[in-house]
Amino acid sequence: MRVLGLDPGLRRTGWGVIESAGTRLTHLANGVVTTDNTLDTAQRLVELHEGLSAVLGTYRPDAAAVEESLANKNAKTSLKLGVARGVVLLAPAQAGLPVTQYLPMIVKKAVVGTGHAEKQQIAPMIQRLLPGCAVDNEDSADALAVAICHAHHAGTRTSWASVAQQGRAS
Amino acid sequence: MRVLGLDPGLRRTGWGVIESAGTRLTHLANGVVTTDNTLDTAQRLVELHEGLSAVLGTYRPDAAAVEESLANKNAKTSLKLGVARGVVLLAPAQAGLPVTQYLPMIVKKAVVGTGHAEKQQIAPMIQRLLPGCAVDNEDSADALAVAICHAHHAGTRTSWASVAQQGRAS
Repeated sequence: MRVLGLDPGLRRTGWGVIESAGTRLTHLANGVVTTDNTLDTAQRLVELHEGLSAVLGTYRPDAAAVEESLANKNAKTSLKLGVARGVVLLAPAQAGLPVTQYLPMIVKKAVVGTGHAEKQQIAPMIQRLLPGCAVDNEDSADALAVAICHAHHAGTRTSWASVAQQGRAS
Repeated sequence: MRVLGLDPGLRRTGWGVIESAGTRLTHLANGVVTTDNTLDTAQRLVELHEGLSAVLGTYRPDAAAVEESLANKNAKTSLKLGVARGVVLLAPAQAGLPVTQYLPMIVKKAVVGTGHAEKQQIAPMIQRLLPGCAVDNEDSADALAVAICHAHHAGTRTSWASVAQQGRAS
């Protein structure tokens, strides 16, 4: 299964693509879609949508996983993050992909082993879990982390489904 | 100039199309794009985008005006409203339209005459400003209000541009 992880932001949306086969994870690509902050919000959202469509077209993932923003204490920041997240959820769903959202603490737990890990612990763990993968920024690292999280959870779901299947078959 | 007004919401997004020629306003159509709340957010955003694309394709407006949400005190509500607003800003911008946002108090001032008008004063004023227009719900009324607001402001901008032009020409 090929998973696209996404960490939404109006200025920078991190993305990362991994391939998961059983417990084996392989890094395919990562990057950041940036938007021009001299443009108005609507035009920046068009840039973001075009950038995501290009990634979806190039890597043709089977599923998308999006970091679910915790409501920010600052409602204005939440609103700004929300418009970007709307487009980040929309683009893969338009491409027919199932889109799953994961809370930051679930992502940290999947990658570092604890939901209370510090943000700086993410990138080194990504390098360990995806050997040979070069990540030069936090947004891509967070995107790869949510992709790994989805691969783990989807793997667990598949295993349970297979156990249940065997249970029914026996 | 044909203006599409939009009042964003994940469950219901109101829309209204008016034609403005000088100070004369004519109502063309209004309605609501609703999404199925049994679907996940990403799929609902696809429904919203498809609904807006259909309206844009049918009425081919020249400009879009969107009610700018005030940050809600509840950050979670702001985040939910934000994802819908992201798609509402995106769709007309993708169609090449200029998209302008107006704060609720600017819209009220344009339609009722005061920024502190009650929400219930909007619909009756819409009926008066757009004779013969039938609006059976608050979301469409709010969408028509923001369209009227844009027509007024665009009219003012045009008049000033023409005054400036004459000033330069003389």
